[in-house]
Amino acid sequence: MQWLDYDTENCSIQRTLEIIGEKWSLLVLREAFNGVRRFDAIRSHLGASEAVIAARLRTLVETGILTATPYKEPGHRTRNEYRLTRKGLDLYPVLISLLRWGDKYEADTEGPPLLVTHRECGEPVSTVVQCASGHVLDSPRDSQVSPGPGARLRERIA
Amino acid sequence: MQWLDYDTENCSIQRTLEIIGEKWSLLVLREAFNGVRRFDAIRSHLGASEAVIAARLRTLVETGILTATPYKEPGHRTRNEYRLTRKGLDLYPVLISLLRWGDKYEADTEGPPLLVTHRECGEPVSTVVQCASGHVLDSPRDSQVSPGPGARLRERIA
Repeated sequence: MQWLDYDTENCSIQRTLEIIGEKWSLLVLREAFNGVRRFDAIRSHLGASEAVIAARLRTLVETGILTATPYKEPGHRTRNEYRLTRKGLDLYPVLISLLRWGDKYEADTEGPPLLVTHRECGEPVSTVVQCASGHVLDSPRDSQVSPGPGARLRERIA
Repeated sequence: MQWLDYDTENCSIQRTLEIIGEKWSLLVLREAFNGVRRFDAIRSHLGASEAVIAARLRTLVETGILTATPYKEPGHRTRNEYRLTRKGLDLYPVLISLLRWGDKYEADTEGPPLLVTHRECGEPVSTVVQCASGHVLDSPRDSQVSPGPGARLRERIA
């Protein structure tokens, strides 16, 4: 397959990044995966502006990654609580992959600030690239790319 | 662990996103994983401006994800060819996770445009979240988070 001959408009990586390909979106999701559900807690933990967090949450709700449920505490205005949907939970491998790469290459000398372990056995959790038959791919070179049913040739090659 | 009590400044997800947490960076890496190495080919395939692609490539080289090797074709000025380092190749699970989520949730009705299969057996490739003992985690709820050696409490909780 000559990858360059194909149009990237409908590329699945690109489509995913159009939804979550921005630092604050993924950090909002990190909070959701860590059980932080309320606007004020998310905003304060991230240290971003209200406008940025509100915009990212809106997109994540509109795209079906989070659900918003209103709640009201006495003396405060109604706010939303955000929870991951199935579609949102399916982003778990993305977050674990980002985490483990950062642990390996960008942690301070004392080590990573957060350990994610298997609840039952206590061993550290990471992502493994493997095929549907269970073969682990040690390198991208163990994989092969070919045009899928949605592949479209580029109209002109610049 | 009370995640909200901890400072996120040195979070490994955040550190990773400070380097690659932008759509064009990850799309440049998609090209690199697909063997597209030259500036003009990358730029033309992505359809972004020269300035954007040049800036993203510069960051990826500075952070040790890509190496730049100059080449010169007759009649053209010297350009760089970009290749993934070990650190760059280790981002493969991130890209496969983004790809497979997009395949599942954002593909057009005809299906995904690109198939990534295991070279030996031909089965589709994806990422699996598992622990070091090989237990597969079906849900984030199968994991547990605890403070790591680099954990820092937040100075004040807003």
